[in-house]
Amino acid sequence: MSSQAALAERFRALHRSGRAFILPNAWDVPSARMFEELGFPAVATSSAGLMVSLGYPDGQYMPRVELISAVKKISSVLSVPLSADVVAGYGASPREVTESVKGFIDAGAVGVNIEDFEHSTRKLYPVTDQVEKIKELKQLSDTMGVPFVINARTDALRYAAGNEEQRFTECVARAKAYRDAGADCVYPMGLLETRSIQKFVAELQFPTNVMVRKGLADFNTLEQLGVRRVSFGPSASYAVFGFLRRVCKKVIETGDFSALTDGAITYEELNALAKRKA
Amino acid sequence: MSSQAALAERFRALHRSGRAFILPNAWDVPSARMFEELGFPAVATSSAGLMVSLGYPDGQYMPRVELISAVKKISSVLSVPLSADVVAGYGASPREVTESVKGFIDAGAVGVNIEDFEHSTRKLYPVTDQVEKIKELKQLSDTMGVPFVINARTDALRYAAGNEEQRFTECVARAKAYRDAGADCVYPMGLLETRSIQKFVAELQFPTNVMVRKGLADFNTLEQLGVRRVSFGPSASYAVFGFLRRVCKKVIETGDFSALTDGAITYEELNALAKRKA
Repeated sequence: MSSQAALAERFRALHRSGRAFILPNAWDVPSARMFEELGFPAVATSSAGLMVSLGYPDGQYMPRVELISAVKKISSVLSVPLSADVVAGYGASPREVTESVKGFIDAGAVGVNIEDFEHSTRKLYPVTDQVEKIKELKQLSDTMGVPFVINARTDALRYAAGNEEQRFTECVARAKAYRDAGADCVYPMGLLETRSIQKFVAELQFPTNVMVRKGLADFNTLEQLGVRRVSFGPSASYAVFGFLRRVCKKVIETGDFSALTDGAITYEELNALAKRKA
Repeated sequence: MSSQAALAERFRALHRSGRAFILPNAWDVPSARMFEELGFPAVATSSAGLMVSLGYPDGQYMPRVELISAVKKISSVLSVPLSADVVAGYGASPREVTESVKGFIDAGAVGVNIEDFEHSTRKLYPVTDQVEKIKELKQLSDTMGVPFVINARTDALRYAAGNEEQRFTECVARAKAYRDAGADCVYPMGLLETRSIQKFVAELQFPTNVMVRKGLADFNTLEQLGVRRVSFGPSASYAVFGFLRRVCKKVIETGDFSALTDGAITYEELNALAKRKA
C-alpha cells in the first residue's frame, strides 16, 4: 500500500471510529502545519480561506490548476491526512468532476468535499446529476489506488425551494441519496441548531459533518448527538482577521506595538511551519 | 504621470514629511487589503511571512518568478503604495539585482527593500558591491518612469565582524554609504534600543526604518528620535500564528468553539479582502 493510500485509510477510519473528530480548515501552508503540530488527526482546506488568501473570492473563480497547486503545496508539508475542498468539482458533468477530483488526489489529498450547487447562480444541481457524480467518484476511489474519502455536501438548507421545513426535508433526502450513492460522509451546510442536528443524524444514521459557526453546540454534545466530523470551515480565517484588525487598531490608537509582540511565535517557529515535520 | 508613478511619489513623500509613519507588512492578499482598510498610508510585503505562507522558508529559496507573482496579486488589489521585500535581489551582481527589482516594479510595487547579505551564508556583501547595486537601482528609479523608493537594509549589526561597538560602527558606515549611493531610506536590521536608535539617527541625518520587535519604543518616542518609518516586519505573521495556536488549544481543551467565532469577521468581509476596494 502506498503511503498516500495509508493516509486515505487513516482518514477513512476517523469517520468510522464511533467517535467524533475535529477537522481544522487551513488557508495556507503554515496554518495547515500549525494544525498538525497541535495534534489534530487530519487537516482540510477551506475554499473561502485559501482562495481569498490567493486573491480570489470563494467559488470557482480561482483557476482549477492554481487551486490544485495550492493543495499540493499543503499536502507536501503534512504527515497527517489532508482533505481538499474542491467546491463543486469545477464542472457540471460527472466526467469533469471526476477529472478534477483526480487532480486533487494526485496533488496529495486523501479526501474531498463536493458541493451540490453552482456558486455563481446559487442553484442546486438536480439530485440525480449529483448522485451520478458521487457514484463516479466512488468508483474512482475504489480503483485509483488511493481510497479517498468523499464528503458529500448539500446546500439544500440554504437553496432548496419552500419553507424551512421543506428545505430540511430536501436536505435529508439529498443526504440519503448521496450516502446511498457511495459517499463516506454527508455535510449539510447550515445545519446548526442542536435539535435539527439530532433530527438529521437520526434520519441519516451515517457519518455527518457539521461546520463551526456561532451557536454550534460544543464538541462533546455534538459527539453524543452522533456527529462524527466537526470542521472549522473558514472560521479560523474569520477569527485570524478579526484578531489582526483588533491588534492593528490598538497599535494605531496607542502607538504601542506590544499587541503585535505579546503571545507571538518566533522567526524560527514561523520558518518551521514552511517545512514538513522533522 | 502614470498612476503607478503617482503611487511612487506618494510613497516617497511619506519618507520626507518630517513625520514618522507605520508600514505594516502583509503575507498575502487579504492581510494587505485589511491593512489598507485600517487606514495605513502604505503596505509592504514581509519576505518571511509571504514566503512561509507559500511553503518556502525565508531567504531566496522561493523562486523569483513566484515571489514576483505573489507581489503582483497583492498590488492588484491595493489602492495605496506597496513596497516589496526583494531579499537581496536574487543575484550578486548589480545587473542581476537591477533586473530582479525591475520585475517587482513591473508587478506593481513602488518601493523595494534590498539586503546587504547572503541568506544562505549569513555573510555581508562587500560594501563597495552593495553601493554599486544601489547606484544602479537609483538610476533605474530615475529613468524607468516609476520613481520607486529604495530602502537599503544592512545586517551589519548581526553579521559584521568584531564586538557590538564595532558592528555598530560598521552599520553606520554602511548606512551612510548606501545613503550617499542614492537610497531613499536606510534600514539597520536589529536596531532596537532607544539609545542606539538615537545615536544612529543622529549619525545618519536621513530617513531611517526600524522594525517592530519586543522592546521597541512606542511610535511617538520613535518619531521624536527622528525615525521616519516603522515597519512590522514579520511581526503580524508571528502574532497571528500565536493567536491561532491559543485559539486551537482552547478549542481542543474545552470542546467549546466560541474562541473561533468571537470577534471574528464575516464571510462577506473575508471575501471583500480578495478584491480591490470599491
